[in-house]
Amino acid sequence: MTRLFKLVGGFAVAAVMAAAPIAAQADDKDTIDYRQHIMKGLDAQTAAIGMIVSTQIPEDNLVKHAEAIAQMAKTVKKSFEAKVAGGESKPEIWANWADFSKRLDDFVAKTDKMAKDAKTGGVPVVMEQMVDALTCKGCHDVYRNKK
Amino acid sequence: MTRLFKLVGGFAVAAVMAAAPIAAQADDKDTIDYRQHIMKGLDAQTAAIGMIVSTQIPEDNLVKHAEAIAQMAKTVKKSFEAKVAGGESKPEIWANWADFSKRLDDFVAKTDKMAKDAKTGGVPVVMEQMVDALTCKGCHDVYRNKK
Repeated sequence: MTRLFKLVGGFAVAAVMAAAPIAAQADDKDTIDYRQHIMKGLDAQTAAIGMIVSTQIPEDNLVKHAEAIAQMAKTVKKSFEAKVAGGESKPEIWANWADFSKRLDDFVAKTDKMAKDAKTGGVPVVMEQMVDALTCKGCHDVYRNKK
Repeated sequence: MTRLFKLVGGFAVAAVMAAAPIAAQADDKDTIDYRQHIMKGLDAQTAAIGMIVSTQIPEDNLVKHAEAIAQMAKTVKKSFEAKVAGGESKPEIWANWADFSKRLDDFVAKTDKMAKDAKTGGVPVVMEQMVDALTCKGCHDVYRNKK
């Protein structure tokens, strides 16, 4: 039995409600869509924490944004394991997987540290660490096709 | 001293690097931009976890998405405290603050529970809880202007 849920505005998910587990099998479009969702989430939360660090927005939510970023960072590598170039992903990702993978491990470690340290250090600590933790552009310059 | 960081593709943050803390003061555009970043993050992560629940994507990242959603959920109410209608937010939000606020408290409680339960229960638990935890449409129908 398949039911269609309206989860968020404009986004519909077909959730398979079968009692028996079904092994997930991503086709190429699914793979690309999924990693784009992850990147959009990171982009949006980085923008939000950026507004706090730049003093445009009060800092109440600082730690929660940092935690969300750290959690999302941990999902990126898995989303690129399937060798599917396209969307904005260059084939160089899989040609240079060791480099790409190491960059993502660094991203996970640094965003995790930033989230932990933000709890006690607040904005100054995030300000200090984010330039090194959120090195999005470093990967994008090499591995992403500009839209 | 103000420095401009390139954080993510296409998004630039002016981070005030002054040593002395500066109280953040959001103008109306900042307020609207900030809550839109939060909503975009939620939208993207809900889409990602939706792809797992609908078996389009393997479940490896399930718990991380659920945790990211729970963290982001905790940031929403604060982002709406400033009484700034606009963007897609209707003035009804502040006219009916008790209702709006209660809905967001429920959202926080339910996404928090879903993230905790996902650790042991996996996809079936998320599938069971998400319809009630991610009731985005309930609020959007009442409090959001469609684009």
